[in-house]
Amino acid sequence: MNIAILGCGTVGSGTVKLLMKNEKEYTAKAGEPIVIKKLLERHPEKAAALGVPAETIVSSFDEIMADDSIETVVELIGGKTSAYEYTKQCLRAGRNVVTANKDMLAEYLGELTALAHANHAMLMYEASVGGAIPVIGPVSRSLAASSISRIYGILNGTTNYILTRMAADGIPYGEALRDSQKLGYAEADPTNDVRGYDSARKLAVLASLVFGVSVHMADIEIQGIEDVSAQDMLDASAGGKTIKLLADACMENGRLRASVKPVSLPLEHPLASVNDCFNAVCFIGDACGEIMLYGRGAGSLPTASAVVGDIIEICRRRHDVVPENPLWK
Amino acid sequence: MNIAILGCGTVGSGTVKLLMKNEKEYTAKAGEPIVIKKLLERHPEKAAALGVPAETIVSSFDEIMADDSIETVVELIGGKTSAYEYTKQCLRAGRNVVTANKDMLAEYLGELTALAHANHAMLMYEASVGGAIPVIGPVSRSLAASSISRIYGILNGTTNYILTRMAADGIPYGEALRDSQKLGYAEADPTNDVRGYDSARKLAVLASLVFGVSVHMADIEIQGIEDVSAQDMLDASAGGKTIKLLADACMENGRLRASVKPVSLPLEHPLASVNDCFNAVCFIGDACGEIMLYGRGAGSLPTASAVVGDIIEICRRRHDVVPENPLWK
Repeated sequence: MNIAILGCGTVGSGTVKLLMKNEKEYTAKAGEPIVIKKLLERHPEKAAALGVPAETIVSSFDEIMADDSIETVVELIGGKTSAYEYTKQCLRAGRNVVTANKDMLAEYLGELTALAHANHAMLMYEASVGGAIPVIGPVSRSLAASSISRIYGILNGTTNYILTRMAADGIPYGEALRDSQKLGYAEADPTNDVRGYDSARKLAVLASLVFGVSVHMADIEIQGIEDVSAQDMLDASAGGKTIKLLADACMENGRLRASVKPVSLPLEHPLASVNDCFNAVCFIGDACGEIMLYGRGAGSLPTASAVVGDIIEICRRRHDVVPENPLWK
Repeated sequence: MNIAILGCGTVGSGTVKLLMKNEKEYTAKAGEPIVIKKLLERHPEKAAALGVPAETIVSSFDEIMADDSIETVVELIGGKTSAYEYTKQCLRAGRNVVTANKDMLAEYLGELTALAHANHAMLMYEASVGGAIPVIGPVSRSLAASSISRIYGILNGTTNYILTRMAADGIPYGEALRDSQKLGYAEADPTNDVRGYDSARKLAVLASLVFGVSVHMADIEIQGIEDVSAQDMLDASAGGKTIKLLADACMENGRLRASVKPVSLPLEHPLASVNDCFNAVCFIGDACGEIMLYGRGAGSLPTASAVVGDIIEICRRRHDVVPENPLWK
């Protein structure tokens, strides 16, 4: 299958690396080679440094649309402007889209899903929530038999690292934030993470998918971690608890209640031991009971692994391959 | 889609209950009604008590094979004799099989997968490992981009309940076993659970799928929990640890190393806080890093939810429905 990748940033470069390194394994799993036909990147040297041939690198999206052999477009630009426009163009043209873009999906998942339906294309987004953690797939497949009443979890690695450091080392918020910036976990402008917006976007995507209604940022009560003090953490610890930034959504009498805010959890709670950059998502369903999915919620290769998983799944569907029934060595 | 269910025991009755209770929701998700055309059960009163019409209940498997309208057979008899024979007959006839039968799969997964391939049928078995926990689906789909080097976890709820009680209440093994029998967790003959055979069968299924080689019971070093003493648990606790029955498989230089045995885990280890009847499965992969999937590993409805998830997935594939792209309310 010929694909185009849009963007060669953190996740884009991880995706290129995985596809180049594991070509043989992926061909076997996908039932056909996955060929990077075009890569859209404004800084061609970034892509060239990964070994992408010069003729593959393009600077205009039109060149991708002009190539009819590209059946799947992997959108890793991020943001809601050009990414959204490109995604719509692809779906309208019946091309599948794989994306990690929670900003876009938090606002347009319903619209884009409808567009995919109308044009017999697939929109895949495992990488948009929880990085490497299988979340979107399991909740739409294995858990399909359960009616999910509540989703909650730790959806942002940067804030979880900061809170973990505050709890473990007794340091104040500002110091833990600076440390996380030094380590490259937090960005220079940490607003999206520390104010809870990133968690809220992921919660919007998950809640939309699980509850089957469009959930937007405005539907979510959002409070970040900036006001969590060293004293708050000490008080929690003295009471056998720890503070986590909890994203939480449930349906009560047909009405959505959704929030992202710092919450004191008892130390024996499964989420209390989710530390550092790790994420975890919990589901409560009538038949399945409580389910927790845990792993690396960010990072180049973990997120790229979810992206490539989606690409392989699209290939398999084209060839009617049942992933649970692999051919044996 | 017309289905037949074989067996109306714990998981069979849960499956019937779910299918009858959630008919409307499942029809919407599956793209068609899921109709129980036949139910094989030697004790018809068991099925009748659930509201299954008398004409649906049959006492001979031949009646199911004789009905050409049945496309998917749900094998919930258990064991390796008739279940194995029926599964082979179904697959040979091109009928899909959904099964929760780890005993059968631990021995014949490779053979049955090949049979499914050869006859263009699907063999689905999410319920065979970890009950309600999505494991088989995620590891064959979302995690397909990662090369998994190690699988480990707590795969048996009964022994985990016993060890949890020993650790929490300081009681000896025998007392904890009797309590778990009173609660219905352990069977009258607890051999399969306490000697580690049940965990080993699930590990064989998982390792076979993940490493792509046939892993059998004989390949696994197995030690149960019968010799874990109250003193062992006290010693572990004094060292900041707890004892869990760990199933563990990895590939080292192309050679499988697999074991099921009691292991002391530091209390801060993610598996140390998996308590009572809960199960958890961890994967370590090159791109995804560490992933843990946690939930109810047994029980009528949790296991049935995995069975029905597989049935819905088969329907969706027939209609080319992409689960990640649901229609919105």
